[in-house]
Formats: sequence, C-alpha cells, structure tokens
Amino acid sequence: MTAAIFGLGLIGGSFALSLRDYGLADRIVGVEPSDENALKALELGLVDEVVDFDTALNADLIVLATPVDVTPVLATKILNRTRSGQVIMDMGSIKEELCEVIEQHPARGRFVATHPMWGTEFSGPTAAQHGAFTGRTTVVCDSEKSDPDALAKVREIYATIGSPVIYMNAAEQDMHTAYISHISHITSFALALTVLEKEREEEHIFDLAGGGFESTVRLAKSSPQTWLPIFTGNKYNVLDVLREHIHQLQILRRMLERDDKEGLLAAMQKANTIKRILP
Amino acid sequence: MTAAIFGLGLIGGSFALSLRDYGLADRIVGVEPSDENALKALELGLVDEVVDFDTALNADLIVLATPVDVTPVLATKILNRTRSGQVIMDMGSIKEELCEVIEQHPARGRFVATHPMWGTEFSGPTAAQHGAFTGRTTVVCDSEKSDPDALAKVREIYATIGSPVIYMNAAEQDMHTAYISHISHITSFALALTVLEKEREEEHIFDLAGGGFESTVRLAKSSPQTWLPIFTGNKYNVLDVLREHIHQLQILRRMLERDDKEGLLAAMQKANTIKRILP
Repeated sequence: MTAAIFGLGLIGGSFALSLRDYGLADRIVGVEPSDENALKALELGLVDEVVDFDTALNADLIVLATPVDVTPVLATKILNRTRSGQVIMDMGSIKEELCEVIEQHPARGRFVATHPMWGTEFSGPTAAQHGAFTGRTTVVCDSEKSDPDALAKVREIYATIGSPVIYMNAAEQDMHTAYISHISHITSFALALTVLEKEREEEHIFDLAGGGFESTVRLAKSSPQTWLPIFTGNKYNVLDVLREHIHQLQILRRMLERDDKEGLLAAMQKANTIKRILP
Repeated sequence: MTAAIFGLGLIGGSFALSLRDYGLADRIVGVEPSDENALKALELGLVDEVVDFDTALNADLIVLATPVDVTPVLATKILNRTRSGQVIMDMGSIKEELCEVIEQHPARGRFVATHPMWGTEFSGPTAAQHGAFTGRTTVVCDSEKSDPDALAKVREIYATIGSPVIYMNAAEQDMHTAYISHISHITSFALALTVLEKEREEEHIFDLAGGGFESTVRLAKSSPQTWLPIFTGNKYNVLDVLREHIHQLQILRRMLERDDKEGLLAAMQKANTIKRILP
C-alpha cells in the first residue's frame, strides 16, 4: 500500500511513523505547505518524499492531518478526484462541519472520519512519536456513510497499530471531545495566563513551579494554530463545557469563602471518583 | 543521627526513604495515628520502628509531615519539650499560621519551616517514592528565626538530597504556593466535577479520556484529608487566585462567544510563554 499524508506535524508525522513501524505502507509521501517542516520531515525519515497535491492523489490511502479549518474544503477537493479503491481518512479533533460538508458528495463512501485520542503539547514534525496511538481509543464518525471496504481498511490500520475503535455520530463526538480534551486545553491556557498575570507583580513566582503545576499547565504550551480552529469550530460545545466548569469553580470558591468544610470535603470526595476512569 | 518522622504518608514516607538512601540517618522511627498505615510503613521498611510521642522526642531530628491543620499545635507541644541540639522541621504546604503560632516560643530557634515542592496525587505510605525531592526546590520560611546550627543542619539535609533551597517569609510562600500548587489542585477537582456532572446524562463520555485529560485531571485523585486543611488554611490566597483564574476563563469564554479570533490567538500566544519556566 502507498500512503499520502497531508500535514506532517505532530499527528501526521506520528501516523507516518506508525504506518512504517507496523509495515502498513510500502511507500509514504507527504504534502506539507511549510518548506521548513517538509525538510525536517524528510530529515527525520517520516516520509519518503514530499510531493505536490496532484502527485499525492496517486496514493492508495490519503490521510488528512491538517488543521481542522482546512480539512472540509481539502477533503472535498480530494473526493472530487478520487479513483476507485482509494481510501481517504482524516484525523482531526472535530467532525461536525467536515461531515456536513462532504455529506452529499457522490464519493462520500471513500471517506472515513477518524479521531485518535492522542496528542501532546508539542507540534511540528520533530514532535512526531513512535507508537503514538497504540493503546489509545480512536473515534470513527458516521461510519455508516463510509463504503464497507473503506471502513474495513481503516479499521484494519487502527487494529494493527493497537488503537481500539469506537463509533459515534459527528455531533456526539464533538460534544464528548469538548468535555474530554478541549476543556483541558482551555483551562490550561487560562491557568498559565492566571500565573503570568500574577508574575507581573511577583518576580519569583516561578522558582516554585512543582510537579502539580507542570502537569496541569503543560497543555498551555500547545500550538495556537492547531487549537484556535478547534475551539472556534466546536464553539457551542466548548462554550457549554466552559460555562459548566466556571460554575463548578464558583461553587468551590463560595464554599471556601463560607468556610463550608463539609461541602468542600464532599465535593473533593466526589471528584476523587474520577479515579475509576483514570489509570 | 536518629530521626523521628510524624506522619508516614506520601511526604513523610518519601522523606524517610531519602534520609535512608542518602545515609543521613542511622535510625528512623515514625509516629503514625493510623494502625494500618503504621503497619504498612513497617512492611515497606520506611521506618525501623513505630513509636509513641514520648519516645519520638529522643531523636536528633524531628520531622513533621502531618496534615497542615495538625502541625501548629503539634510543633508547639514538641518545642515545649525539646532538648539542646535537637532540630525540628516541618514539610507542610502552608506556613503563615504555623510560623505565627510558634513565633514567640522560647525554643523557636530549634524549628526550621520547610516546604519541598514535590507531591503526587497519591497518599499514604504506599505512595512513598525514592528520590522524591531530588531536583525539586525547597522553600525555607522565616529562616532568620531559626538557630544557625538548626538551619545549617536542615540545609545540609536538602543539599545532600539534591533539593535547592530558597528563602521566603511565610506570607510570601503561602501566596506563591497558592498560585503554583493550590490552584492546580482546585482546577483539577473542578474539572473532574465538570465531567462527572456531564456523565450523568452521557453514558460513554469516559471512553474517550485521552492523555491531555489525564494530565489535567490527575490531581483530582488527591486526598481530600490532605487538601481541605491546605485550602482552608490558605483561604485568602486561594480565594484570590481562584477569582483571577475564573476571570481569565470568562475572558476566553467571551472571546469565543464573540468569534474574536485575534483575541483568542493573542491569549494563547501569551499563555505559550509559560514554556520558559517549564522543562
């Protein structure tokens, strides 16, 4: 199988490594608008060649690992020219707009919308990791709209990589992802801003940064170019979860203000039950 | 040197391991109110013996790794009976009340108030780790109130363990720690509550929990028994940082609501500058 990967950043680069490590592709080419990233991807051996749009369309598998605001139009242009037997998939964090844009396309069946639940705060080809998706769940959206052979091919790829697949419609996936991923990034950005704000008056605040801080704030290092289109593309879900999160913080703040120790204890004990879903 | 450690949990247990690993104590005894934890600490070899209060007072070094609401009175009782040459130190996350309570004690000089910036979301003796404090900063508070020999002994211990020491007064340390540690825990508890709230309507929300979620929410597994007295004991600093954090979240939320992409981008780029203080 030959594969063409659009976008050789954290996700596209890591997927290229997985395809190669698991012997899933004989030849991998990439399409990458940044010359610097293209050169780096070649140096790192993520792809065999960086090619233009037309050349990439010859691949058996086309993978879109592009910013989510680019994907719907790009997917449409590729579907316009897809050939028999070709499979096109994306790996983006949100799906509603994408699935709506390609919904009525005559070649819709060749497309499989996927979201592997993996990422780091780093970006670009140097951030690519071996074994990135192994052990992580992948969401496949609106799978009934994909041709059975295209879906089977993508399922086989994720199964080989060791990523269990679950199915959802695009609207469900975007809501769930807002709660599980997008809010973590927003709170981390806000936490960094909170501390940076205080640093304007307090010179030495960072001398203390310990493990807990690092863990909750590390996502604030994430790429704004990646995350701005995710937040705006998933606007109403992100607004919902942000409202709920601010509400929870205000409840905790009011309990502390009123010395309501029983309330705080009960809230923390309830929060502790998150243990059952974390390793 | 002989050492007595009050509280054989995450911090006290880890400190016992460090004292032993670095050859700093010939004999380590512990005082632990929970029979279960005492037994576990002995099984794990954290201490040579679990002893009563009076016996513990024979040690050369007395270490308080107790919940922060217990420490001020316990410290006073121990100072009441301290003998020449003995050093008493604590390892708690907040210091203002402790330092105020012992301020006028005739034996104040024997006490060294320390806060090593390390912890995990786990608690109890089984959570103790080798090398816990190595490479982490330790804050020493109101060091001018400690006798030079007592301060030198504690500095030597942290130097041997590999924990750089910085100095602050108790009020500064409590404010800084609210921004660097306490807020991370509160937001993590709130984030867990946000998602648990949503889970009441959405059965499969946790199928997706990926790396970013785990990282920002892991502190929500922390012990309420440890953190309730920290939050209430550092009430006004925690209320301040919570107000600022909620404010930052509201700014981001309003920008998203108004499709203010430039504003969101600028905020995320500013948050990115947190890179300079994270590894």
